[in-house]
Formats: sequence, structure tokens, C-alpha cells
Amino acid sequence: MKKILVLNSGSSSVKYQLFSVENGEYTSLAKGMAERIGLPNSVISYSSSSEPKLSKQMDFPNHEAAIKELLQVLLRHNIKSLDEIDAVGYRMGHGGEYFDKSVIIDNDVKEKIYDAVSLIPLHGPAFVLCLEAINNLLPNVTQVAAFDSAFHQTMPKEAFLYALPIEQYEKYRIRKYGFHGTSHAYIAQKTEEILGHQGRYISCHLGSGASITAIKDGKSVDTTMGFTPMVGMIMGTRCGDLDAYVPFHIMNTQNKTMHEVNMMLNKESGLLGLSGYSDMREILEHYVAGEERAITAVNVYIHQLIKHIGSFVAVLGGLDALIFTGGIGENSAFIRKLVCNRLKCFGISLDEKANHTIGQEAIISSPDSKVKVLVIPANEELMIAKDTYALISDTQQVGKVA
Amino acid sequence: MKKILVLNSGSSSVKYQLFSVENGEYTSLAKGMAERIGLPNSVISYSSSSEPKLSKQMDFPNHEAAIKELLQVLLRHNIKSLDEIDAVGYRMGHGGEYFDKSVIIDNDVKEKIYDAVSLIPLHGPAFVLCLEAINNLLPNVTQVAAFDSAFHQTMPKEAFLYALPIEQYEKYRIRKYGFHGTSHAYIAQKTEEILGHQGRYISCHLGSGASITAIKDGKSVDTTMGFTPMVGMIMGTRCGDLDAYVPFHIMNTQNKTMHEVNMMLNKESGLLGLSGYSDMREILEHYVAGEERAITAVNVYIHQLIKHIGSFVAVLGGLDALIFTGGIGENSAFIRKLVCNRLKCFGISLDEKANHTIGQEAIISSPDSKVKVLVIPANEELMIAKDTYALISDTQQVGKVA
Repeated sequence: MKKILVLNSGSSSVKYQLFSVENGEYTSLAKGMAERIGLPNSVISYSSSSEPKLSKQMDFPNHEAAIKELLQVLLRHNIKSLDEIDAVGYRMGHGGEYFDKSVIIDNDVKEKIYDAVSLIPLHGPAFVLCLEAINNLLPNVTQVAAFDSAFHQTMPKEAFLYALPIEQYEKYRIRKYGFHGTSHAYIAQKTEEILGHQGRYISCHLGSGASITAIKDGKSVDTTMGFTPMVGMIMGTRCGDLDAYVPFHIMNTQNKTMHEVNMMLNKESGLLGLSGYSDMREILEHYVAGEERAITAVNVYIHQLIKHIGSFVAVLGGLDALIFTGGIGENSAFIRKLVCNRLKCFGISLDEKANHTIGQEAIISSPDSKVKVLVIPANEELMIAKDTYALISDTQQVGKVA
Repeated sequence: MKKILVLNSGSSSVKYQLFSVENGEYTSLAKGMAERIGLPNSVISYSSSSEPKLSKQMDFPNHEAAIKELLQVLLRHNIKSLDEIDAVGYRMGHGGEYFDKSVIIDNDVKEKIYDAVSLIPLHGPAFVLCLEAINNLLPNVTQVAAFDSAFHQTMPKEAFLYALPIEQYEKYRIRKYGFHGTSHAYIAQKTEEILGHQGRYISCHLGSGASITAIKDGKSVDTTMGFTPMVGMIMGTRCGDLDAYVPFHIMNTQNKTMHEVNMMLNKESGLLGLSGYSDMREILEHYVAGEERAITAVNVYIHQLIKHIGSFVAVLGGLDALIFTGGIGENSAFIRKLVCNRLKCFGISLDEKANHTIGQEAIISSPDSKVKVLVIPANEELMIAKDTYALISDTQQVGKVA
């Protein structure tokens, strides 16, 4: 049996999950989250199948402090010594063109990671915080990086190239990278398991971040996020697609710096900018109450979503399965219904009753629907655990042969 | 009988056409173009149905000099006095939210025009050059402005809003405006005439500028250009859609000013940036010869085109007619074939023989195609002449009643 710790860090949070792996079976032993890192009233939560959810307020000045505490929590509940952790796998935002799959981190890999995340200065730093904390806290453990961009490295050139002077790609590496890859890869695998065959899938990861991916026979062929995770589908606070001249126009006419505009596009735009609320649950409450700005935000959300799906139907030359995942995708039957009702022209027919499912795996299309519509809860952590286990098993086998 | 002069100015060119209107029939008496205005070796051309094409090298330091000369050309060939010109209609790039149709220019309109074009500082000035030249050269003639953005004013809010803080629209008027409206409006009318019914159309204006519009029952419901004419479909030298962070990234990492980046995105990108050639005819020659960069550019072109079409099929909830217009749309059977072959999933079936048409009105779908595919030569000038005639007729009737 092996124990694998999976970490998924955001700019002020770390999600964690401890898995045991035995005979190919993955069991989640414990999971939780440290939130509000570096902010007042940090908090850490813990739950396991045998215990009710615990949560505790603490002061976490940085990610390392939070990770140190979550290791203590695991020591109290699940493990006797940190040596029981065979490997740590974590979500790395950006692998540039270096990585098309998860890898064990060595010095060479580390250098490439720092180089790749430098392409997204706003989002990059959050991703390397785990790496630095684990280096200090568990210096001898095997570390595996799972890259958000890796799954999309199969996109063909016509999908990832921007129409800029070609040296912007060849010399400066400006291209569409795509993110949320671990989530979309999990959806691709899981959908294939459920349907029993590969095909033309569109995976809609709709959370506070959101991206949509066209998947053909298990491979990403196009996706909505771009050079950065700011674009594509409208998100909680990120703007999604925008005329690339607009940031200049705002700087020129509103006396704002580049940094201010960048923060606006990432932190004050999206659903928040349109409606005043960044959380879809809140927006839908106000939508139902007839609040105009909430209605506008939902209309924009649906309009953009069906456009992205339509564009990927064209790319795939047809559609076999449409999959919803992420907080909104898993939980909002209302959004799923609005979307599917607009997509009848593609052969999508919703089973309204089946669509009542919340947060659970389900087929929600009607039996006669030409396109299967599925809800699959996101599980990046399991995907990272699997990649991590596969890599440490390989290494150990190589060790034995030698 | 009325005589109407139509002008269509670019940053260094003016296209002109003189129409006579009698009993609802529009006859083109003469047309031509002044090119390389403000550059060495300016040239003006002239043709009419009764005379072969003439062209003459002259020095045009500015648009007014070119328009002065084209009036002289018309005096030599078509009219005895400038008083014979009953009205001048011209293409105005931007009407902001002020104008949803063509209007006679008075002082109030003039003020609004200057205000609207200030939104696109790079493209705006070219559009007001006619206005200023005609004010000086024909101070008493009735002038009509046909706005590139007017046809798109029917777009619903969910199609034209960017997901920015809402004050960016409400206070600063940042939204998708869309352009090429006169061309798309002409296509909408003409398609309805040919098919005998309204419906769900997608109009692809593919020239050195390019935009695609979703038209439902004669009205624009979405379009690819945005706040500026730089975005949407990849163009001759304009970048089309681009991650809105990329311009900042280029400034930050390549020691370029905002102006330099803006010029790069507008003048050095698009097909030119990818292939080294901005003209599709040249690119296709190199494509056929197997040149890698030309192949990449064509692949990107087709990929983006089918994505925009797919997204509009979703918006329209299906498709009745797909129309190609503009230099590439009218003349490149090869591009049309590549596009249509990728869109079979939408019920598009091309008649390969009918597709051999070049620059002429034709239905090029096979008889059993669910979606009609048409080629219609662009004719913005006729559309502007019609708008202009309608407006001067209205005015004169009002005059008569009073």
C-alpha cells in the first residue's frame, strides 16, 4: 500500500487530500482545505469518511504555514509519521511547451517550472508555493507536478496559434496554452468509462474559473483558455474573451496603469463585474427575484457558453457527448437546462427529471437524445493521485531492474 | 432622375461610384478608386460601362486632393456641373450607439460622428476624411453617412456586452459595436431576395478586413468584430481574436510601447504575421507549393472561420443559409470548399461544380443541402446609394408637404 498526498493551491488557499493506493484501488483517507492564507481569520478544515467535518481558525501568514498545519492534522488523524507519505502530487498551473504529462520533480524540471510560470505573472506564483513549502517541510519525499496545460499540448497548431507575427510564437512562446487540463483529462477518461467508447466530447468545467475543451478520442483538440487563464468563457471575476484593444483604451482614457487594468480584468470583471456577485448561486437568487443585472449576467453566461460549444461542434465535426463539471456545472440544474434548451439544433435533448441531479454523476439527456449529456463531479485530486502513483511505481521498477 | 455619389474611404484610399436613380432603378454611371493617398506614386482609376478602365498617376497629398480630382474626372466624363450631384453618401466607420441607420448629416449628427469615431483612434480618422473634404469641395450638397456599426445595433445585450465592470459600458461605452454593417445588411437583403424568405443566415465578409455576422429575420444578432475592427476573424494584417493580456505581456517583456504593440496587432499580424503575405491569393500560391508557413496560415484561417460559424449556428438555433462575400469570399472557390467540407455536421453540402463560380452571384450548395450556401458579391456602394436616395426623397417630400 502507498500513501499519496495531493495538494492544489490557489493564491490564498490549499486544498489537500490523502489517498491510499492498494491493488489499483484509490481510497480517499482524508481531505480538507486551508483558506484565507495571508489574510485575517485563516481557517483549516478536515474531513474523512469516518469522522464529521472539523474546522479550526488559525493564523496562516503563508502557504508553508498552512501546509505545515495540514500535515499536523494528518498526523493526528491518519498517519503516525510523515515518512508514511510516499509521494506528494500537486497541481502546477503552467508547463509551457515543456510538459505534456505529469512528471517527478528534479532540478531540471524545477528550472522549467519556474520558467513556464513566469509567462503568467499574475497566476504563476500561486502554483509554485506548494513546491517551495514541500521542499522545506518534506525535503526527501518524491514530488510530482501535474500541469494544468499538459492535457492541451495535443492541440494542433491551427488551434493554438494566435495570428501575430510568427516570431511572437517561435521566439517569445506566445500561444494558446489552455488550463484546467487535469480536470478535462479526468472528464475525458470518466466519460469514456461511462459510455464505453471514445468519441467527440465537449467538457464544460464551470466553476469560479471556467473553461471548455473539445476532446476527440481522448485528446484535447481545442480549449477556451488561452495564453493566460483570464480568457475564454466568462468567469466569476475574470473577463473571459475581450477585444484585445480594450485594455489599452481603458489605460488611455481612464488614467489607469497597466497593473490596475490587469487587476480589473482578473478580479473585478466576469459575473462580478456584470451583476455585482461573483457566485452563481447568489446570482441565480437575484435572477429569480427579477433583478436586471443578475438577469443580464446569466444571459451573457448562457450566450457565451452556447457559442463556445457551437464552435467546438464545428471543430469536432459533430458531437457525441456534452459534459458538465465544476461547481456550477455539477450543481446548477437551472444553468444546464438553459444551455441544453438552446442547443437542440445539435441533437441535444435534456431529460428534465434526470437533470435534477446535484453534484452526482448522471446521464441527464433523454434516451432519444443524439448527444449524451452528462454530469460528472470534478476530481482533479484523484487524477493527480493516479499520475503520482504511476510515476513512483515506474521509478521503483526501474530501480529494481538496475 | 437623381445622381448620387458614393464614397468609401480607407486610411490611404477613396473608392467612388456615381449612381443615377430613376423609377427605383439604380445605374452605376462610373466608378474608380484613388490609392496611395499621402504616399509616393498616388494613382486614380476610372471606369464606366461604356469606357475602358483608365488610370493616372498623380500626387495626392491628402484625401481632399484625391476627392477634388475624382470630381474633375466625373466632370470630364459623366456630368457637366457639380450641381448635378444631388447627394453624397459615404461609409462612416463608427456610429457608436447614436445611429442604427443612415442619416443626413447636420451639425448635431456631425458632433456625434466625431464623438463616436474617437472610440477607435486608429481607424476613426480615415472615416471622417470624406466628411471634411466634401464640406470644403461641395459645401451645399446633401451628405448622408452610412455607419458600419448601424446594422449591428439590433444585437441583444448578451451579445454586445463584455464581462467587465458594468460602468465600463454604462459610463465609458465599452461594448461590442461590430463593423462591416453595410455589407452584411446588403447580404441580408440580397439573400432574402434570392431565397424568397427570411431566416437564419450567417454572412461571411472575407476581404482584407473580415467579419462574420449572425442574421435572424433580417437583423444582426451577433457579429465577430468588437469594440474595434481589429478582432474576431483573422484578417490580412489584423490579429483577430487574441488573449487580452497578450498586448501587456509584449509591452512588459519586449520593451515595446503601447503604440508599437497596437501597430503590430493592426498592421503586422493576421495572415501577414503568420505567412509573410497579407493577400490570400499569394498565400494560396505558396500553399499549393507546399510552403509550411502558408499552410499554417490557411489552416488557422479555416479553423477560425468554422469556429465562428459554429458559434453562430448555436446563437441562431440552426442555419438556413451561409453566404460568402468580400474579395476572398467571392473569389476563392478553394477556401469555400475547405470551409464547407468541415461543416457537413451542420447539414452543409457543397456542389463542387457550382462552387467554381468566381466573383458572381450563385448558389453553390448541392440541391439536397439542408443549408443553402451562396456567393454574393459585396456591394456596399449600392446599399449606401439606396440609403442616400431614400433619405433625400423623404426630405423632399417633407419639404413639399410643408
